[in-house]
Parts: sequence; structure tokens; C-alpha cells
Amino acid sequence: MGAPNVVLEDITENAEAKVARYAAICYNSKTDEESNERRIKNLLRMGHLATLRFASATFTVSNITRVCSHQFVRSKHLDFLQQSQRYVSQSDVAFTTPIGVLKNQELLRDYSKHVADGFVLYDKLIGGGVKKEDARFVLPECTNTKLVVTGNFQAWRDFLRLRDDVAAQWEIREVAQKIRKELVKHAPNIFGE
Amino acid sequence: MGAPNVVLEDITENAEAKVARYAAICYNSKTDEESNERRIKNLLRMGHLATLRFASATFTVSNITRVCSHQFVRSKHLDFLQQSQRYVSQSDVAFTTPIGVLKNQELLRDYSKHVADGFVLYDKLIGGGVKKEDARFVLPECTNTKLVVTGNFQAWRDFLRLRDDVAAQWEIREVAQKIRKELVKHAPNIFGE
Amino acid sequence: MGAPNVVLEDITENAEAKVARYAAICYNSKTDEESNERRIKNLLRMGHLATLRFASATFTVSNITRVCSHQFVRSKHLDFLQQSQRYVSQSDVAFTTPIGVLKNQELLRDYSKHVADGFVLYDKLIGGGVKKEDARFVLPECTNTKLVVTGNFQAWRDFLRLRDDVAAQWEIREVAQKIRKELVKHAPNIFGE
Amino acid sequence: MGAPNVVLEDITENAEAKVARYAAICYNSKTDEESNERRIKNLLRMGHLATLRFASATFTVSNITRVCSHQFVRSKHLDFLQQSQRYVSQSDVAFTTPIGVLKNQELLRDYSKHVADGFVLYDKLIGGGVKKEDARFVLPECTNTKLVVTGNFQAWRDFLRLRDDVAAQWEIREVAQKIRKELVKHAPNIFGE
Repeated sequence: MGAPNVVLEDITENAEAKVARYAAICYNSKTDEESNERRIKNLLRMGHLATLRFASATFTVSNITRVCSHQFVRSKHLDFLQQSQRYVSQSDVAFTTPIGVLKNQELLRDYSKHVADGFVLYDKLIGGGVKKEDARFVLPECTNTKLVVTGNFQAWRDFLRLRDDVAAQWEIREVAQKIRKELVKHAPNIFGE
Repeated sequence: MGAPNVVLEDITENAEAKVARYAAICYNSKTDEESNERRIKNLLRMGHLATLRFASATFTVSNITRVCSHQFVRSKHLDFLQQSQRYVSQSDVAFTTPIGVLKNQELLRDYSKHVADGFVLYDKLIGGGVKKEDARFVLPECTNTKLVVTGNFQAWRDFLRLRDDVAAQWEIREVAQKIRKELVKHAPNIFGE
Repeated sequence: MGAPNVVLEDITENAEAKVARYAAICYNSKTDEESNERRIKNLLRMGHLATLRFASATFTVSNITRVCSHQFVRSKHLDFLQQSQRYVSQSDVAFTTPIGVLKNQELLRDYSKHVADGFVLYDKLIGGGVKKEDARFVLPECTNTKLVVTGNFQAWRDFLRLRDDVAAQWEIREVAQKIRKELVKHAPNIFGE
Repeated sequence: MGAPNVVLEDITENAEAKVARYAAICYNSKTDEESNERRIKNLLRMGHLATLRFASATFTVSNITRVCSHQFVRSKHLDFLQQSQRYVSQSDVAFTTPIGVLKNQELLRDYSKHVADGFVLYDKLIGGGVKKEDARFVLPECTNTKLVVTGNFQAWRDFLRLRDDVAAQWEIREVAQKIRKELVKHAPNIFGE
């Protein structure tokens, strides 16, 4: 019932070559294509991760729950803009059902009914003069949201280490994996596992 | 039905005197009690707000909704630890009802019933083998949470400017006002309005 | 005797349109070219500066003194890579003379001689087995350096407010003015004064 | 000829107990003295370093060179106030001589004379109407400075990992070792090696 949708909006072009060239300035070194890859690997091996702040990427992420977005926005060094429940009507917003519920017919029926009832009540509250910012109090945490997120490559590596991990909840892990898939295309030496 | 509970856990002792004394090092100035207050006022007037990073305060904030905590944790320069819905059972957790709903008997009855149903379903999902991290998907956004938050005085001023404001939602504004009330006791020149 | 050299290395393409489009997601608003400019102006007027974190720019800055670089790297929200005096020989590095000295023949002669003596002593120390990282202790603060600096548009606006200002020292102010000149070309509504 | 002087100005009282107690809120756990130490060790082992942001320490550091301060202020997550060379006369400021120079009589004589000449020229420039902010251009990088620095425990651990290390220059390493010595007294489980 919906999977996270991840779209790469923007990324530093030729990011690895740029990071390598900027890093070379510290040592007044010559640079060429062959040495760039070696230099990136050295930077990572030696932990000079501040060099990764010179490239960045921006994604839009949608079809994720407020559970997931609440975890996501805790990423200290990423920056976010999120669709507002104060100003955007939630009447037609989708929701997500966890696999653990999908597998059990009875639980799924109860879950779906309760969530649907929540959206009906949301509309009734709005109809009764309650503001959107307060009517949303009855919406379930599985209500979907949308956000834009940006960060430099060091911040993205931190995020992936934490969230593309077995200890992470399945939803944010799926977001992390989709983000890695895009980043690897553009910076394989930095984001390859 | 519950108001935010704000407890000051920790604050830099004699914060204003310390900030003034550290700032004086920049100019090799002498300091005394009288000049400290004048110096703080000068720092604020001239926008030398980085000096405020040398004092900090920590609060526990409870009886706030996940709506409020989702807004709160967006404060870039504050740091948070939040009670986990992945690991802590939500069976007996309280919830908050907005004033707009409290004023209308019919809406209040529907609201209270729907929220109560959500907690009953939460328990049923848990009983059916669904993990806590997934069962919480049915809980309403008005479910209460608890967090610890820390930050330096510049970060707290940024937070108060944004959230102790008519444009902020009533709940986080109430949190901000209670936080200001504590901070003003310890640093009246920095946090007085 | 040398002026700061500022080169724009990288900047988010169509930055203003992107910032406007991402901001519109918060409100589920439609966007078009005309509304983008209006939206940027609204964001700035209302202080929604976090939206500016979704565009960034990178510069190489050279022919600046260690005085200037020591001030520059204090910019909390910019990131730097600087040419190392531990690993790069300073034998042939240039230096900068302030206008106040240039105007006075006798002071200029003394200044130039003392600085030249410092570089001669640097070479003698190196010849005597002193490491580069220690030999530099005799070099004057007017020794030139080179750095790469990156930051998002909010960080750049903070930098320009502080450093493109009469209270700033002339050298970093000149750096700031040259940086603004480049940024204005790409984002006139964000960086125009 | 001078060694860094490090003074602990301020530190969170009972820091480890507080960090452990705040961390326990996430899991709604009971706390006691015995479990606190175990909890700190668990947090470090599992990499939950954000919990360390809930304790902080402030130091004044003097008798360090501008070489050292230029490295020090690059610590992204620490905050600094530094004695200004724009506003404070440098006529009577001390300087530092590296061991590599101290060991060689001829180099030491040349070094000491050149540095002394620099301070004489500084006074002459000031006498000739040059501003302090420009006269300092002739001062050597070995000129001493003073600063106040603050940071949370995560930032201090990052600093110590980088600077209390054989790859760091001797001067900042000595600063790091003196800082660690103080921090270990107050938080042995967090800062013990």
C-alpha cells in the first residue's frame, strides 16, 4: 500500500572529480583523472571526510508516513522542507500499511477501517470549524507526507550509515536504499558499499 | 486535557556574568558586575550573538503531542533525545485534545471515541504479533510524547523568536512560553522580551 | 601588492527557481516563472531563510593573507579546505602589503625588508633541518594563502551581512564584495543589496 | 619558551549521570548509579554519540601561537571567542619557539632576533599611523594569542580524536592532551582513552 518515492532533484556535477581537485589544493598537488579516484579512496581511508562537504544532493521524498518523516528530520546535518499539515488539506492524502498488518486479514480490515474513519472524522472536524492544524490531531501516524531534503556528501554518508542498516525501521531503510541507489550512480567511490 | 510540562534540568550557572567575561577577553577588557550587564546589552544590540554559545540549558518536555514534537525537533541548533515509540509500549500513553474540539460536545465525543479506539486497536495489533514500531501506525498524531532538549543560548533565542510568536501553533507556543519563563529567571538580559 | 582573487567554481543551476519550487511543496502550491520571483521575495521578507539551504556555491579564494583566512574560517556555516603550511613549501609564496603602509615610503621599505628577511630565514630554518610546520613560525601574518570554500545560500548571506560591511577589515570585505558580485549574477533576488 | 596554558572554566556537573539519565528517557528505563556507568559504555559502544551533546565544557587557552589558533578554530562543532589583533595592542604579546629551533644555537639566535625585530617594526608602524589591524601584518605566526572555547562532549571527543594524535602538530596536540586531562577527571568513561 504505497512505497516511498525518491526522486533525485539536484546533484553536484562531476562530484568526485571536484572533491579530489579541491582536496589537492591543500597539498598543491597536480591532478588528473586517474589520480582523482585514488585520491577519493585515500580521503575516505584516512577519514578526511570534510572534503565531502564540497558536493551535495537534493531529493524529493514522498509516499512516506509521518512516522518516517519524524525520524528523517532528526538527521542533524541534512536540511528539510516538508509539506505542511497546518496549511495543506489532508482530506485526500494517502496512508501506508506495514507488512506485519498486511499479512493478517482481520488486522488489515480493522486497520483500514480505523484509518478511513480517521480521515472521515478529520473532514467532520474541518466542517465543524476546527482549523486544519488541529483537525490533524486525529489523523494516524501512517498518514503520508512529502518532503524535500538536501545535504552535502558527508551528511548523506552519515545518514546512510545510520538508516541503511538492519537496526533501522523498514520504511526509512527503504528510503535510504533508494537514495543510495541514486548517489552511487554519480559518486560510486564515495557511496558504494 | 493536558498541557505541556516543562522542567529545567540544567543551566549554566551565572550565565550572564560568564558570557560577559568571555566576551571581554576579545578586547582584553576589565570586567566587574556593573559592566557585565552593560556588556550583555551591547553584545545583543550589536548582534554579537556567537557569545551566547557559551551558556546552555537543558529541559525535559512532556505531555506534548507528536504534532508538537515533529515541529520541535526541526529546530536546527537544538539537540534532542525523544521517548521511542519503537521500544516503549504506547498502551497507557496519554493524548491531547485541542481547544477547538473541546468547545464542541459532539466533536469532542467523536474525537475521544476515535482516539480511544486507536489505542484499543494498537493493543490488538500488538496482541496479533505486530511489532510496536508498526502498531503505532494507527495511533493518532495527538498521542503524547516526552523529550529532553538542550541548546546554547543563541539556539534558544532562535527557538523563542520563531515559536513564542503568534504565527506558531498554540501547543509549541505554550512550550516556548514556559521555556522562556525559566530562562528569564537565570538570564533576564538575554531572554527578557 | 596583490588583491584577493575570487573564482566561482560551482553553483546550483537555476537556484532561485529551485528554491521557489521546493518552498512551494510546503504549501502544495502551483509554480511558474512569474510566481517564483514573488515567492523568493516573500521568503526573504518573512524570514523563511531555511529555504536558502537548498542552493549552494563554491569558490576558490587566493592572494589573501593568513590574517584574512583566520577571519574567514570562523564563518561557522561555511566549509573550507585550505592550502597547508605543514606540507606545502612557503619559499615562493607571495605576501600582501596594506594600503596604510604603501602610502609611506619609509614604512614600506622597512615592511618589505622585514618580510623578505622572514622568507630568507624560513629557507635557512628548512636548510637547518627544521620541519616546514615549524619553520613557518617566522613567516609574517601577511603571507598569502589559498582556500576553497563552500556553503549554502543562507550561509553566504550570513557571511556577506557580516563581512561586506564597513566594520569588517578591508581585505575580507574585498573578498566579500567579489563573492557577492558572482552570486548576484546567478541569484539577483537573493543576493542583491 | 612558553607552553599552552589550559584552564577549565565550566563543565556540566555530574555529566555522566545526566547523560545516562537523559538517554534512559528514550527507553523509559529505570536508572541508578551502577547502571549509569554501564549505560554510558553501551552508548559509546553502539555509537549513540548524540547523547553526548547533553553535557558541555568551556576552556580558556592561552600561550598558543596564531598557527595553533588557526588550526583550532577549524573545529567545526566547537565555538570560539578569540583575543582580537584588531583591537588589542600586540606590543607586549609573547611568542613561542618550536623545539626544532631551540636545539640549534645559531638558528635560535636568528629566530629570536627576527621575531624581536618584527615587534619593533609593529610599534614603528603604529607610531607612523598604521592601524593595529594592519600593523599586525608584520607579526610572525608564532605570536601568542588567547581564546575561550566551548563545546558539547561529542564535539570534544571529535577534537581529541583528531588532535590528540601523532599526526597532529605538537602544539595543538599539547593543547588537546591538557584538555583531555581535565575532561577525564569529570567524565572518565567518556574521555578515558
